[in-house]
Amino acid sequence: MKVLLATRNDAKLAELRRLVEGRGLEGLEIRGLDDVPEFPEAPETGATFEENALAKARDAAAATGLVAVADDSGLAVDALNGMPGVLSARWSGRGGARTERDAANLALVLDQMADVPEDRRGAAFVCAAAAAHPDGREVVVVERWPGRLVRSPRGLNGFGYDPAFVPEGESRTSAEMAPEEKDAVSHRSRALRALLPRLSELG
Amino acid sequence: MKVLLATRNDAKLAELRRLVEGRGLEGLEIRGLDDVPEFPEAPETGATFEENALAKARDAAAATGLVAVADDSGLAVDALNGMPGVLSARWSGRGGARTERDAANLALVLDQMADVPEDRRGAAFVCAAAAAHPDGREVVVVERWPGRLVRSPRGLNGFGYDPAFVPEGESRTSAEMAPEEKDAVSHRSRALRALLPRLSELG
Repeated sequence: MKVLLATRNDAKLAELRRLVEGRGLEGLEIRGLDDVPEFPEAPETGATFEENALAKARDAAAATGLVAVADDSGLAVDALNGMPGVLSARWSGRGGARTERDAANLALVLDQMADVPEDRRGAAFVCAAAAAHPDGREVVVVERWPGRLVRSPRGLNGFGYDPAFVPEGESRTSAEMAPEEKDAVSHRSRALRALLPRLSELG
Repeated sequence: MKVLLATRNDAKLAELRRLVEGRGLEGLEIRGLDDVPEFPEAPETGATFEENALAKARDAAAATGLVAVADDSGLAVDALNGMPGVLSARWSGRGGARTERDAANLALVLDQMADVPEDRRGAAFVCAAAAAHPDGREVVVVERWPGRLVRSPRGLNGFGYDPAFVPEGESRTSAEMAPEEKDAVSHRSRALRALLPRLSELG
């Protein structure tokens, strides 16, 4: 089965290929959006990660006639009632380059959490992974990577909110973990691993 | 019964006095914090409006030996899972003068809501009003003023998020309503009106 991963991000594509290898799923051929012509991509305006992931997968499946996989993810902070959530990438309202937006979003969350005491600093990275068949069948899964927010960013790996997020059972932030360490346990890899065996439902 | 309103805001004091008049509650003598010596005021770090209002009322009651009334309020935006909520006054993380913070907080919420469609722009002003007796008895009520957020601020009255909030049944923002019109229906006046008859429980 050919499966299209609805992303132009090479790192995401390589990660999905690594996850597929050695899982008895070698029949899957993973392709990225760079292999297909441009098509109108839906804006991420859903109220949930599931809605956004499904919309992206549906659009890609309709445009290509292939089974398409897409994900949407973000940070859910307990003391912010689960926000920034689907607004994680634009929490500060700033435009500009991704690194600048990341820095502004992270600084804003830490400012908003400045007076929140230690016992209420829980947070989770959340990822929804969806697959859509051009015939309308679809699957979506959601996985969480629980942890807490520190007060001062630490670490240079990862991106987004990684420098402030310490996963459960860790003392390092996810920006202090090696990329392959993070890949092994992150919300994204959990969601993709949960989705992969269910692709056969769309086969 | 002497009742202390735990605020140094003359407008709040005058409003409570107006609400008391003509309600068969003339036995109440309302005093403000300006009438009592300074005392340590608790920071507003509760997870809910109720917690913050109760903490302020308790502190004032303990410091003065009087029944004390306090309130805490903010804006709860549906698409932000009820935030800014208790963080309404410091949502942008900015310090500085109140008018500057108000402008930064309002601009941030409108930026965060930029891609949120019309049918998901619901919001409510929420106010908790609490009363505490020095002996430990206490009462707290919460009232909501439901409405929705517009995309561009309008109006010069009120403060905070008023220029973006259109109450249910209105076409004007609460910053376009006359102060006495807003007073008659706002979350704060609803909460104080709900609290007043219950002060007798602490008499």
